Amino acid sequence: GSLSPLAKKTCTEQEHMLSYGARAKLSDIHPLGSKLLQIMEEKKSNLCVSADVTSCAKLLELADTLGPKICLLKTHVDILEDFTPAFSNALKDLADKHNFLIFEDRKFADIGNTVKHQYEGGVYQISSWAHLVNAHAVPGPGVVQGLRAAGKPLGRACLLIAQMSSQGSLATGDYTQSVLKMAEEQSDFVLGFICGSKISKKPQFIHMTPGVQMQAGGDGLGQQYTSPEEVIATKGSDVIIVGRGILGASNWAAAAESYRKAGWDAYVKRLGQ
Amino acid sequence: GSLSPLAKKTCTEQEHMLSYGARAKLSDIHPLGSKLLQIMEEKKSNLCVSADVTSCAKLLELADTLGPKICLLKTHVDILEDFTPAFSNALKDLADKHNFLIFEDRKFADIGNTVKHQYEGGVYQISSWAHLVNAHAVPGPGVVQGLRAAGKPLGRACLLIAQMSSQGSLATGDYTQSVLKMAEEQSDFVLGFICGSKISKKPQFIHMTPGVQMQAGGDGLGQQYTSPEEVIATKGSDVIIVGRGILGASNWAAAAESYRKAGWDAYVKRLGQ
Repeated sequence: GSLSPLAKKTCTEQEHMLSYGARAKLSDIHPLGSKLLQIMEEKKSNLCVSADVTSCAKLLELADTLGPKICLLKTHVDILEDFTPAFSNALKDLADKHNFLIFEDRKFADIGNTVKHQYEGGVYQISSWAHLVNAHAVPGPGVVQGLRAAGKPLGRACLLIAQMSSQGSLATGDYTQSVLKMAEEQSDFVLGFICGSKISKKPQFIHMTPGVQMQAGGDGLGQQYTSPEEVIATKGSDVIIVGRGILGASNWAAAAESYRKAGWDAYVKRLGQ
Repeated sequence: GSLSPLAKKTCTEQEHMLSYGARAKLSDIHPLGSKLLQIMEEKKSNLCVSADVTSCAKLLELADTLGPKICLLKTHVDILEDFTPAFSNALKDLADKHNFLIFEDRKFADIGNTVKHQYEGGVYQISSWAHLVNAHAVPGPGVVQGLRAAGKPLGRACLLIAQMSSQGSLATGDYTQSVLKMAEEQSDFVLGFICGSKISKKPQFIHMTPGVQMQAGGDGLGQQYTSPEEVIATKGSDVIIVGRGILGASNWAAAAESYRKAGWDAYVKRLGQ
């Protein structure tokens, strides 16, 4: 290329310093990615709460209590004991009320024809209420094609899982690079990544990191934790995904506020670097 | 080692020639693997039908019609529009009546703590009715640990996805080798693989291959097809998984019988090699 090393460095630094609000206005960003970045800027929150509870009432209580603090609510609809379509409607209403997006952490991982049915059909009809879903890249690009066929007409999007927080994960090295390539080739439906650190320099992609807790450690089933500061300021990710750090606290709202503040302070620190 | 190349070759040939019935009696085989191999031997069937229908009534009709021809019925419970616990009980009864096992093709792919909940909880309570489930190895060994915690006390087992039939799959090379290692380290709960061809020489492991049709071709969403003869006689797999080749036929029972015969003839040919 014709850029000098100095010019390249400056360009990268500028990308690193782009605010969520500025990225929301990029010309070729996915509309839903733009909406999420706007929410993050407005609510000063890069916090996604992982709503790993097993009753619908508990999940709705959690969404209503923590709604003001979060940009995203991550669900596992398939661990709820008492799911009904009325529940997903109530959840959508809370997302509107508190201005957050819903991310169903389904980790689709089958061939295109199957994930299409799993996404739009069955008891859960995920595509009808989840703004975002995620997928593993292991089946090849067909997994995104299948999801896109059902989700794109509804204005939905997906995240690809590029790295995982669990011990011994195979999503490393060449695998992660293949995920990046798959996302770039289908950026009309893929708006970002689940990852441990920033893997794409394109500011249109949003990076989200699970396994976040204030204290380091693990859970005895392979999960490993990193801090908000480390994830946002050092690793360059955009969104912290926090589950047991908040749900295990006696006061959910106070715990969520401390994570929101830690995530936001780390972002402000990164912008100032 | 002390074996001469000739001795090694003979040993491998003997493994290749072991009948399903002989493998069922191996001392260190998983009890459920032994049961499946016995069923295959008794029913002269290495056919698994992929029951990709969207209504419970249709699935039960399919299970009752094709039950006598199959060793395994593969389900996607999450594409059924009208699932109820009564359905899973009825399916269990048909499995007993026709002597086949139920394999829920859930492709678990999350951290251990989450897959444990997804496997035993939620609306579907998969561990209560599915003899077998499968998992992607991408999260690392924790995915098997989580499933084992819920399934082992019930006598269940899982298959690891070592290769996929879809175009551009990332389950190749080193990834496949890591899956093999993960299975060997947790063979008290992993009884075999989803794969394109035989990847382990241990006759305790059962190999199952999806994407099987009499004619070669694809589906426009990345799926690619191979024939029963190719899968069993050439690639050394044990079970053919057939979906649209049977469900797309006007006469399900006749189509299933032709796949059962093709799969069995290929197995007999392999034994005679």
